[in-house]
Amino acid sequence: MQAQFLQLAIDLAAKNVETARGGPYGAVVVKNGEVVASSGNCVTCNLDPTAHAEVMAIRLACEKLGSFQLTGCTLYTSCEPCPMCLGAIYWARLERVFFACNRHDAAAAGFDDSFIYDEILITPAERKIPMQHLVLADAQKPFQLWATQTAKTLY
Amino acid sequence: MQAQFLQLAIDLAAKNVETARGGPYGAVVVKNGEVVASSGNCVTCNLDPTAHAEVMAIRLACEKLGSFQLTGCTLYTSCEPCPMCLGAIYWARLERVFFACNRHDAAAAGFDDSFIYDEILITPAERKIPMQHLVLADAQKPFQLWATQTAKTLY
Repeated sequence: MQAQFLQLAIDLAAKNVETARGGPYGAVVVKNGEVVASSGNCVTCNLDPTAHAEVMAIRLACEKLGSFQLTGCTLYTSCEPCPMCLGAIYWARLERVFFACNRHDAAAAGFDDSFIYDEILITPAERKIPMQHLVLADAQKPFQLWATQTAKTLY
Repeated sequence: MQAQFLQLAIDLAAKNVETARGGPYGAVVVKNGEVVASSGNCVTCNLDPTAHAEVMAIRLACEKLGSFQLTGCTLYTSCEPCPMCLGAIYWARLERVFFACNRHDAAAAGFDDSFIYDEILITPAERKIPMQHLVLADAQKPFQLWATQTAKTLY
């Protein structure tokens, strides 16, 4: 079954390229042996740099299940998730992930996955996109409000 | 100006909690000294685990500018971007980022940012959410099609 669902993700990726819809990636979310949602990469057709196949499949699965978490679900993706998609997988609380190609295959095809993984290890201010910490007096205020807000939904 | 835009992100984060709309985070995209888009965290109200403030602000800015890249734009965020948002920042090709709190402040408030950064350093199969590489015969087919597809839009 695992190979079949992963093959489905690969087929979606191939079709996404053949139809010139977007990048060579596909992803499928499965729960209890059934496909909940699937998507190819939609960055260029949706004008959304976050619309990777995994993020799209996660968003669609959440919409379908009416939840912001995907507990008990497995993600099948044609390629190892980039850091953005890896983060999305954790926030969605998926159970496990299967992937076909890896970050080096993606790099060989001209994509930045491996580069972004390397950037994470560099001090924020020294990165290619510099990320600078500014000290402001009430920076902690949102967290302080969160601690005392009783109407909050934890996620 | 940098402190003012960052303060705006903090104010959005505080308001997001006070109105019980979502998590204690806010982000602002700025181009040529003007706000292009801004958002609080919308994970629970949108039922979308990827709807962090930074991702939302990036998506909205792209929609407004009609582009899947944010070249020349700066992101101001109330807290250091998590790995998902860091990835989104690279894919959107933002110019730079300013942040107020850091991943340890987020961890102290009960959020997984620091945990996810730590997970990235672990071998995929050994992570808390196991990520397993399956070898399939035509795994490279999407990348091979991408190499020869002349109608593709690079991103």
